Formats: sequence, structure tokens, C-alpha cells
Amino acid sequence: MTVAYLGPEATFTHQAAIRRFGSSLRYASQRTIADVFAEVSKDRADYGVVPIENSTEGVVTHTLDMLVDSDLKIVAQIVLRVQHCLLGNCRRLQIKKLFAHPQSLGQCRGWVQANLPRVEIIETSSNARSAELAAKENESAAIAGVLAAEKYGLRVLEHDIQDNAANATRFLVLGRQCSPATGHDRTSLMFSIADQVGALYRALAPFRRYRINMTKIESRPSKRKAWEYFFFVDCDGHMSDRKVAKAITLLNEHCSYVKVLGSYPNAE
Amino acid sequence: MTVAYLGPEATFTHQAAIRRFGSSLRYASQRTIADVFAEVSKDRADYGVVPIENSTEGVVTHTLDMLVDSDLKIVAQIVLRVQHCLLGNCRRLQIKKLFAHPQSLGQCRGWVQANLPRVEIIETSSNARSAELAAKENESAAIAGVLAAEKYGLRVLEHDIQDNAANATRFLVLGRQCSPATGHDRTSLMFSIADQVGALYRALAPFRRYRINMTKIESRPSKRKAWEYFFFVDCDGHMSDRKVAKAITLLNEHCSYVKVLGSYPNAE
Repeated sequence: MTVAYLGPEATFTHQAAIRRFGSSLRYASQRTIADVFAEVSKDRADYGVVPIENSTEGVVTHTLDMLVDSDLKIVAQIVLRVQHCLLGNCRRLQIKKLFAHPQSLGQCRGWVQANLPRVEIIETSSNARSAELAAKENESAAIAGVLAAEKYGLRVLEHDIQDNAANATRFLVLGRQCSPATGHDRTSLMFSIADQVGALYRALAPFRRYRINMTKIESRPSKRKAWEYFFFVDCDGHMSDRKVAKAITLLNEHCSYVKVLGSYPNAE
Repeated sequence: MTVAYLGPEATFTHQAAIRRFGSSLRYASQRTIADVFAEVSKDRADYGVVPIENSTEGVVTHTLDMLVDSDLKIVAQIVLRVQHCLLGNCRRLQIKKLFAHPQSLGQCRGWVQANLPRVEIIETSSNARSAELAAKENESAAIAGVLAAEKYGLRVLEHDIQDNAANATRFLVLGRQCSPATGHDRTSLMFSIADQVGALYRALAPFRRYRINMTKIESRPSKRKAWEYFFFVDCDGHMSDRKVAKAITLLNEHCSYVKVLGSYPNAE
């Protein structure tokens, strides 16, 4: 079995994948979220693991956008506590440059503003990349996990620099088939609505009618027309549950487009 | 009069500020969105200009997060068509590195994947910074506006590389006082709700009751508790309009927290 994940090695996505699938199978590191989707779609990997949302920094918009056009299903979620460190090979006062992924920077913004106010910030494409760059350059530091310190030969200058101690990231496992109901599932779906007074309110009415708890709503530009949006909703229950199935049927009557992205266990 | 904006010079935010305020006043370039808010709050600038949303890439989450704790009001909006270029000093086939701001990269993702599939992507903190870095390094290119080409001595290798031809960004003007009603305004507000079945639905009911068109809804992590959200809503009308004022009063009864961020002309 092969699992594709958003790499490089030692990122939080890699850690999440290992926690879910163990270490006795093949992991294929991918450069982009689009590549993870492609590996699973083209049958070169059985499952894909991508980040979807951080409890401090919010959704990973690129993952939501990829779900719009993909035929893959969300088959599971993994929630990982994320503890960021300041890594470097100099003393904290000597730091002139800080390498950081924008999401990680967002999770540590308060700490960085208070403790490294005059440092130049250079945004990178991953935490592992931040560590790699900091290891190459004097008077520089990186925001990354403790695993990256070992891998790139950096010292941990400060532990737990995320602004919220309960900082966690939710990852999705993507597959080609739907997951069966377990009795404690959630369903992710997306829809688009007409630009009319009350259209969103009407679209939410089916959830209300069948007393289904919506745990999340996001909007994203449709990318088809300026200022037109897709809505992404997570709700309790499996798509095969009677009341969820009925709500989806009703939703189809109110919306110009509805797509069920998957049902999967609510627990990790 | 002084206007603080998210710099450096020649960014799209700078262009938006000039379009709104003209060129006969003092512009103060700021390094971060937080700095723009601080300059206006501390009376060192009369107005601040920050990006809030792109029609392809979605909200600028840091701006939404800053609005939560700020006492500033949104007093106007500016919508600017955004045309990205590929800038560099080599031929397109020679490009090995591409410097790009994550938002701009998101707006050009399809083009970059199709035309520069094997190029290393280095994320930066602004379009101007991308151009500056590309100007310093051989075999590199940047995604930025045409103004940045002039300023940093780069050639335009390709015009209009954004995936959506109608690509536009909305900027907010921040001030210390509310804007008066003009008869064609929109109101931005935020609220939080209890984690209960139907809570979001009930929160939207006041808009429905007074037939107020909601033009936008976003959710953001509250950053206070993991997986707790704030909702940001834009609706038609001024906060002093009778039906908008009534809807806000009703909203206050349903929500644990409501804050009006400002009312401002719907047209630019």
C-alpha cells in the first residue's frame, strides 16, 4: 500500500500520516497539494494525506479549492496537536532572518511580534524548507517542529511558540471509495447558491429541518466568476443516514450545485 | 493628511490607496497589516489601506483577524483589477526559481503549473519583494504587477498570467470615525455563536426577517478556544438604516458577541 502526503519529510502532514497508517508501508512525499490529489486519482497511491484546517490559522484554502474539481472522497480525518519551535544555530539576540511558512507564522504571530520585532521574515513553502534554509545561513532561524531540528541539525532555541497552547491541525485522508457508516460520522459537502436575498438562509434550512448540527461553514471564491462563492459545510452524520440523505435531497432543490465530499468517522 | 498602507512601494495596496486618495498627501508604507492598524489607532495616520479579499484567492485572513480586536472602523472600500505579470531578466526556458507571494501564486496557480512545471517556487512577503529578489538573482523570475517591473529593472516576460481574467482585489480603508449613510452602503459585522444545533441558522434569521441581502459570510477561528469560530458577514444597507439597526438588535439577542465593523459606500 502507498500513501501520498504533502512533503517534504518530517512535516506535520508526514507525522499525521504516520500516526494514521503506521510505518510498515510506502510513503510518497509530494511537492504540492495538487500532486497528492493527482497521485491518488491516477492510482499511483491508495490514499493521500493533506492539511485542511488549523485551529488558529483556519482553512488551507488550496485543499478546499482542490476538492471542488476532484472525484476523490474524504475517507478519514486526523487531528494532530501542533507545537512550533524556534530553531537556529545562533543565540536569539543574533537572529536577523526568520524563515517561516505563512500558516506557521500565522500560528505564532503574537510570539514573533513580541520577541523578534525587528527580524526580517522570509516566507517559505513548508516548515521543513524553513529549517533547511536556516541551517544554511548564519544569524537565521526557522519556525518548525522538533522533528525538523533533528533532521536539519538545528538547536531548539524556544519550545511551544504557538500563540494558542491548544493549537491543532486537522488533516484529511483522501481515497477513491466512500467510507462506510460507523455511527459517529461527519459529512463534508459543498454547494453554490443564486445571488438572491435569503439564498444562503434557504440553503441552510434543510439542516435545520432535520435537526442536523452544522459544525462548520466556509466560503470560497468559485474562480468562475468574480465575487461568486462556493460554500463548504461539515455536518454531523453519515450521508447514508436517513435524515442526512433527506437533507441533501432538499438541498439539491435549493442550490444550483451540490456535491458530497465524503462521510468519515468524527473521531480521529 | 497621512495614509498608511501595506507596503512596500508599488504594491497593489499602494496603487489602491493612490486611486482613492490621489497623490497630494503623505503615504506611509508599513511592513505588516498589524502596523497599518497601529498607525491609525495611534493617530500617526488618518487612514489605513489594507487588502481584504481577492476574487480568486479569497479573504486575507490576517486582516479579518486584526478587525476582531481593533476599534477602527471600515470607512470605505476600493476594488482594483489585478493583473499579474511574469517578470525576469532571462528567457522563460532558463527560469529555475520563481519568487511569488502566496496570494499572487494562488491567483496564477494554473498558469504556473502549465508553463513552469519544474521551477522551484520561493514564497515571499510581497509582490515588490518578489521582484526585488528576482532582480538580484540570475535565472529567476517573479510574479508581480507591471509597476514593479519598472521599479526593479525587470522585463515583462508575460502579461496577464492570472487564471481568471476578471481577477480583482478589494481593499478596506480604515479610520477612527464611522462613515455617514449615502443611500447605497454595505455594512460589515462579526459575531460568535454558541455551539448548538441550528445556532448559525438562528443567527442568520434577523437578516432574513428584515429582507437584508447578505453579500458575504466567512468563518475564522476565534483563536481563544480550538475549533471555535467567529463569523464575518457583509450585508446591504447602512447601520443607521432602520431595518439594518433592527436586525443588529435582534442579532444581539441570538449571539454571544456582535460587533459592527463599519458601514461604507458599496460603490468604490
